[in-house]
Amino acid sequence: MTIFSRIIAGEIPSYKIAENEHFFAFLDIFPLVKGHVLVVPKTEVDQFFDLPESFLSEFLTFAKPVAKAIEAAFPCNRCGISVVGLEVPHAHMHLLPINSADDLNFTRPKLKLSEAELKEVQAKILAAL
Amino acid sequence: MTIFSRIIAGEIPSYKIAENEHFFAFLDIFPLVKGHVLVVPKTEVDQFFDLPESFLSEFLTFAKPVAKAIEAAFPCNRCGISVVGLEVPHAHMHLLPINSADDLNFTRPKLKLSEAELKEVQAKILAAL
Repeated sequence: MTIFSRIIAGEIPSYKIAENEHFFAFLDIFPLVKGHVLVVPKTEVDQFFDLPESFLSEFLTFAKPVAKAIEAAFPCNRCGISVVGLEVPHAHMHLLPINSADDLNFTRPKLKLSEAELKEVQAKILAAL
Repeated sequence: MTIFSRIIAGEIPSYKIAENEHFFAFLDIFPLVKGHVLVVPKTEVDQFFDLPESFLSEFLTFAKPVAKAIEAAFPCNRCGISVVGLEVPHAHMHLLPINSADDLNFTRPKLKLSEAELKEVQAKILAAL
């Protein structure tokens, strides 16, 4: 079981943002910027493009309201997308409010947010959802 | 008309990779790495998540064979995705063969490839498609 499946199953606590039958969205606790959300399919496939077509078809329509809520909660130019996937062998998509290309630069040091700060980020996004 | 619509219309030449009724894929001529492809919807919408739902549903299934061909043509850990969109006001997705997070870092200087090198990249991807 991947760490993401354990989060989805509730074995590991997370700052949940949205969920449906096929997807689960929650805060990245090592965010590049405030408002950094992970969208994870409820199926353990390593490589993003190996996901079943039904997941690929639904991925962006599931992500859309989450992205719009991120944009509303964290003033930005727009919500950017990144699929890297070199660390956890469970396909996932990063959604981040960006103002520059550097906000999507995964070689930068991550922010260290307290539990209170993460809860505040979660509450802001949920209020806009 | 955006520069991407002019490319799709054939007014500006491009290194085309794939096309269907709704999408057009071609080489980014300022690539981060060899094999860097842009996927552009045939509708002029600035923000990615403002695309009509029908485009969002089809985006990743259109991109999938292109991503698989990139992976086959350019040995890599996997094909990564980036949606930044701060430069051209026409929603688009970057597909790149990545071996590290730095291969998706848009703050890096771009490669300067000759026409012959771009043609070779195009031919390699088309051969794998």
